[in-house]
Amino acid sequence: MTQEIKNYMQTLGKQARAAATTLSAAESRQKNDALHKIAKSILEQREHLKSENEKDLQAARDKGLEDAMVDRLALKDNTIDAMAEGLRQIAALPDPVGEISDLKYVPSGIQVGRMRVPLGVIGIIYESRPNVTIDAAALCLKSGNATLLRGGSEAIHSNRALAACIQAGLLDARLPAECVQVIETTDRAAVGELLRLKDFVDVIIPRGGKGLIERVSEESLIPVIKHLDGICHVYIDDDADANKALKITFNSKSQRYGTCNTLETLLVADSRANELLPLIKAMFDKEGVELRGCDRTREIIQCKAATEEDWKTEYLAPILSIRIVDDMEAAIRHINRYSSQHTESIITQDISKTRRFMREVDSSSVMVNASTRFADGFEYGLGAEIGISTDKLHARGPVGLEGLTSLKFVVFGDGHIRS
Amino acid sequence: MTQEIKNYMQTLGKQARAAATTLSAAESRQKNDALHKIAKSILEQREHLKSENEKDLQAARDKGLEDAMVDRLALKDNTIDAMAEGLRQIAALPDPVGEISDLKYVPSGIQVGRMRVPLGVIGIIYESRPNVTIDAAALCLKSGNATLLRGGSEAIHSNRALAACIQAGLLDARLPAECVQVIETTDRAAVGELLRLKDFVDVIIPRGGKGLIERVSEESLIPVIKHLDGICHVYIDDDADANKALKITFNSKSQRYGTCNTLETLLVADSRANELLPLIKAMFDKEGVELRGCDRTREIIQCKAATEEDWKTEYLAPILSIRIVDDMEAAIRHINRYSSQHTESIITQDISKTRRFMREVDSSSVMVNASTRFADGFEYGLGAEIGISTDKLHARGPVGLEGLTSLKFVVFGDGHIRS
Repeated sequence: MTQEIKNYMQTLGKQARAAATTLSAAESRQKNDALHKIAKSILEQREHLKSENEKDLQAARDKGLEDAMVDRLALKDNTIDAMAEGLRQIAALPDPVGEISDLKYVPSGIQVGRMRVPLGVIGIIYESRPNVTIDAAALCLKSGNATLLRGGSEAIHSNRALAACIQAGLLDARLPAECVQVIETTDRAAVGELLRLKDFVDVIIPRGGKGLIERVSEESLIPVIKHLDGICHVYIDDDADANKALKITFNSKSQRYGTCNTLETLLVADSRANELLPLIKAMFDKEGVELRGCDRTREIIQCKAATEEDWKTEYLAPILSIRIVDDMEAAIRHINRYSSQHTESIITQDISKTRRFMREVDSSSVMVNASTRFADGFEYGLGAEIGISTDKLHARGPVGLEGLTSLKFVVFGDGHIRS
Repeated sequence: MTQEIKNYMQTLGKQARAAATTLSAAESRQKNDALHKIAKSILEQREHLKSENEKDLQAARDKGLEDAMVDRLALKDNTIDAMAEGLRQIAALPDPVGEISDLKYVPSGIQVGRMRVPLGVIGIIYESRPNVTIDAAALCLKSGNATLLRGGSEAIHSNRALAACIQAGLLDARLPAECVQVIETTDRAAVGELLRLKDFVDVIIPRGGKGLIERVSEESLIPVIKHLDGICHVYIDDDADANKALKITFNSKSQRYGTCNTLETLLVADSRANELLPLIKAMFDKEGVELRGCDRTREIIQCKAATEEDWKTEYLAPILSIRIVDDMEAAIRHINRYSSQHTESIITQDISKTRRFMREVDSSSVMVNASTRFADGFEYGLGAEIGISTDKLHARGPVGLEGLTSLKFVVFGDGHIRS
């Protein structure tokens, strides 16, 4: 069985590499045409998609999965419409591939510039939601990359049916069907094989829970674009405007609890704690958010005690830890020690402080007077995102089309030689 | 012993991380000041450097190392002058750190841009030439990164003496001495430990022979910027200008034999083979370059037969393999199959061909009518290079200051929240 899976994955890898060569040279028009035709195919296959999805839903209910999990699996009419709309939006984005920048003459007489090119073959490993199949395929296709998609086994019927729509659209636009391949087996060994396919796959993007991402980054022989945690901070500075501070703190924590850009630890300058903490407590009490404070915080407001563990925890829940700090330096030290380098925001009116905070906080998104919830590819104007990176090489923060490409050097001479 | 090395490397790692935080926020003036003071210190310590270097040279001679190897170890007056000059040149380059680009308002009213920031801590693993100690330290310092340097054990006295100059210069400019640390032990286990220091080191750059680079990339738990091979190609197209073709082929192969951007396989369009191959043979015969040809080549000129192995070999020697191809498509297929994705050049007057060659050749440098020998950080106008990358993520091609940085997102709001 293992040898069989190995051979299967090798075959997919070789096919993806061959398709990537064709796709990397495809014109924008052809890629956009494919995206529109995939959208058309999804809408035409609506009933078939729903009936295949029903098989997954039934299996999930039979297995006794929680309602929330079953709900995330569902392909409803509005999910299907949203997928088609997403495809059209990605078709409308500018094509990053082939753009030449910084082209200039250097002293030898040659012209040197950089051309944006696809990465090649991208492996995406994700859980449950079948609409990721379409989102990921569309972004990779637009950026000229072939894709190997490995969704959760609980969505296998839905993913196969979506893959058929994608391949129909590709063929209709005269692109190789192998530009997007869904791994058809639910055997877990296929993931292990995918992570070893370094001759055929250029980057792996895992999307899902921390367990999945940890497993992928430990096992992979291929570079991984990922974020593990979103332990985001807001720091309310001595010179914060009180209204902005309250509004941004509330929005960063309570606009949604389960997202990676949600606030988890609030840092408050000592000079503002007496004034602001009671207001913060009142605001979150009304919302049912549990507060956990440091010793100094608990001298001002009543709440549970925060432990060392709290500073390291991504709650993804209506819980907020609070720490009083002496000044901005102490806030930056706390952040650079405990944050997951995802997103941090300072609330201040003092322009000198923002200058330092922006430079010294080593996170993928650093903000002034704005909610951490803005850390998102759509909000940043990237058009879409395939994920968020908290790594330092290649892409940091939300990864859009540009993050799925890299720059090669191009040189134009006219018989020039080096002397 | 192993535990001792482990503790030692952990200590260096922690110190580097702390120094990196200070260095990342240092102003350009202070970094440039340090570079000038290191240059001054090197010149002042000239005699001491030479006498420490003499210990390495004597040990190398005692071990019976080849003259060429001993020569590469030597710190002569002109090497010392060149190191000081290199430091001053890097001081004169623009500082990439802190530059904000693409700052624009998005529909929500926030401003989103990207700030160029250091990677953090860089581990450099290199062989023999002690001047790499200075070059690497200078580039990392200018780009705001702390460095852990691991040179060859055969240069340990020279490297320690150079490290003392570097640290004197750093302290003189009021920067932490731990911004640049030379690993003082020659125990090979230290390299293994360095490659596992993923909490403290952000990227590893190996510089040296293929054996070193293979070991490093296999063992490292930290991302590696590297190139393994330089199997570079020149393709002489149907529409090549004969003079340019001969001149560029000769320069690409024979300007230097031991460099990674040297031509190794020449591809010639069938329609030009009868005319050009005898001239190419004459040219290289005179230079003492051994030719190895495909069957079709050997119908036209006398030379050794090239085997499948030849297409995969970086000779680093006066040897050139030659293959006749039917057309540009066949040339691109050969290149994308056998090249190490370093540098390839097409010789043609046909602008349509260059358009396709530039897009479809998947190498870090792609050239038109220019010698492959131009693939170099200095020639490209980067000011300097720390190495060349043939990987696809992050940096491709020569890596200068910019390749030692990445982009984080910065967001400026004025109380903005997400709705």
